[in-house]
Amino acid sequence: MKFFQKNIRLGSRSRGFHLVTDEITSSFGEIRELKIGMFQAFILHTSASLTLNENADPSVRTDMESHFNTLVPERQPYYTHIYEGDDDMPAHIKASLLGSSLMIPITNGRLNLGAWQGIYLCEHRNHGGGRKLVLTAWGI
Amino acid sequence: MKFFQKNIRLGSRSRGFHLVTDEITSSFGEIRELKIGMFQAFILHTSASLTLNENADPSVRTDMESHFNTLVPERQPYYTHIYEGDDDMPAHIKASLLGSSLMIPITNGRLNLGAWQGIYLCEHRNHGGGRKLVLTAWGI
Amino acid sequence: MKFFQKNIRLGSRSRGFHLVTDEITSSFGEIRELKIGMFQAFILHTSASLTLNENADPSVRTDMESHFNTLVPERQPYYTHIYEGDDDMPAHIKASLLGSSLMIPITNGRLNLGAWQGIYLCEHRNHGGGRKLVLTAWGI
Repeated sequence: MKFFQKNIRLGSRSRGFHLVTDEITSSFGEIRELKIGMFQAFILHTSASLTLNENADPSVRTDMESHFNTLVPERQPYYTHIYEGDDDMPAHIKASLLGSSLMIPITNGRLNLGAWQGIYLCEHRNHGGGRKLVLTAWGI
Repeated sequence: MKFFQKNIRLGSRSRGFHLVTDEITSSFGEIRELKIGMFQAFILHTSASLTLNENADPSVRTDMESHFNTLVPERQPYYTHIYEGDDDMPAHIKASLLGSSLMIPITNGRLNLGAWQGIYLCEHRNHGGGRKLVLTAWGI
Repeated sequence: MKFFQKNIRLGSRSRGFHLVTDEITSSFGEIRELKIGMFQAFILHTSASLTLNENADPSVRTDMESHFNTLVPERQPYYTHIYEGDDDMPAHIKASLLGSSLMIPITNGRLNLGAWQGIYLCEHRNHGGGRKLVLTAWGI
């Protein structure tokens, strides 16, 4: 049984959904040492999140941003957590809707993703800055 | 430490929420070899998802479909990813809201689910076809 | 490789979002034995859920409850699962939106959470009672 863990930082991105599969996998070559295993990406923030979705057409990422802004609008009259700007509380809600981590099986040294699946960094703040992730993998 | 992994295919189902606990567990008998462990089901698609919810009353599954169609309506004016039909972009959004994988603890050779918990396959396309899953389990 | 598992019960709480990080970690000291590992908290219910979000300002938890009540209102005309009261079906939907489990990396004997991250118990019923969790940790 092997267990690997690494901290990485994804550079600052604009508000929206961003495909980061290659940036994550290229920074964690230890995955190649596992024949059968499991990979987790965990984001150390509460106003950005991780999800899996279509890796091909950028229009999916644009529409995700549009729809999450509709599901979780800014300036709802009942928001009380409003100190850091209109994007603050919606970012927290979106982060919980999408989740802080991804678990992906490893098969023969590679993430076993479907043909159309990619890892999205979901940046919910207008100026979120860089984002810290903990990557962990284990297996045989 | 043991590590097991298997690919399965769930047969084509209608759009909606479907209870598949028995189909998944019966195809992965290796779970019985683990006294303490963890199980993951991972779906290799971006327009169907997995969740845990009530295993008894089918009305929960009907109402889930009704409400997710309200949360993520078809033909929103801001959708730009519209090539594959009105159910295409909503399916991607629902998949990210619900998630691509489930993690369930294993205790004494069985999935340690609550009395009312079952595994749902959430089919978000009108004609999604069969769905491929990777099942992984590890433990002692 | 070590593998630990424990059942705990969180006491009854009012409907809403509650910070339970300390209650969970203090009941699972085995985490300290792991230099690199993974932790899962799994809730054995379909009308309460777990999520990670801001651990400092209680207004985030208040606003989460307000917004989830807007996203998933009671008494929608299409609900058919209405036997147990107006909070019943919304609780099931919220549970699937937020999820039944959390996976958090372990580093040097501690949960590797971001500075602002805490574990929320999301109680979606008006009178949910105590909630049972399975805690599992593994690593080296």
